Amino acid sequence: MKLGPLWLKIQVACGDALAMGPGKADLLEAIITEGSISGAGRALGMSYRRAWLLVDEMNRCFDPVLVDTLKGGGLERGAKVSATGLAVLEAYREMEREAAAIAERPAYARLRTHIRDQPVTND
Amino acid sequence: MKLGPLWLKIQVACGDALAMGPGKADLLEAIITEGSISGAGRALGMSYRRAWLLVDEMNRCFDPVLVDTLKGGGLERGAKVSATGLAVLEAYREMEREAAAIAERPAYARLRTHIRDQPVTND
Repeated sequence: MKLGPLWLKIQVACGDALAMGPGKADLLEAIITEGSISGAGRALGMSYRRAWLLVDEMNRCFDPVLVDTLKGGGLERGAKVSATGLAVLEAYREMEREAAAIAERPAYARLRTHIRDQPVTND
Repeated sequence: MKLGPLWLKIQVACGDALAMGPGKADLLEAIITEGSISGAGRALGMSYRRAWLLVDEMNRCFDPVLVDTLKGGGLERGAKVSATGLAVLEAYREMEREAAAIAERPAYARLRTHIRDQPVTND
């Protein structure tokens, strides 16, 4: 997440896989809105293959799975974020809000004291 | 920073440049230890060119600069982290410690409830 010039990225690993991160959280939200993996991918400017791989990686990391895919209908068949998916998404967003508190703390203010608005150029 | 399976990344932008982040903080520490950009690059398994570009990007983002390079002596000439560099590094590490507090909070515990130790395989 971007808080002005402060960028925070939270990822949760599961063995060699990435269980949750900013792209996967956005994808869960898009599946809720769009009702399918292909629609969610389109909404995020992502290929169907990429969206499907992200869902597959998430689902392999959680029990029960975060996204239930409905049988039949080809690429446009529906997908639904499970109750676990909703709980994990909510927990992830709460972690982001908690981490965002550092933007209000003295350490960041100290760092900003010395930073330029724009980098100087070398020429 | 990695807190077990929880990975946190904090970056601070300055216009189109990245003023500070995990790689640059590690590089500052290596310059303190090694006394030169080339030595720091070697210690981090990084090319001299890459280390120099990271120092240049940092220095263009801060006033005064974070790393003072000493004249003469070619690639092995010394480099010194400035008082501002030490203050910025300290502030960045404090931001990391502050953000790391999310590992102890209920949201992360809720997310972990559902996560597997290892991803299941598709075959």
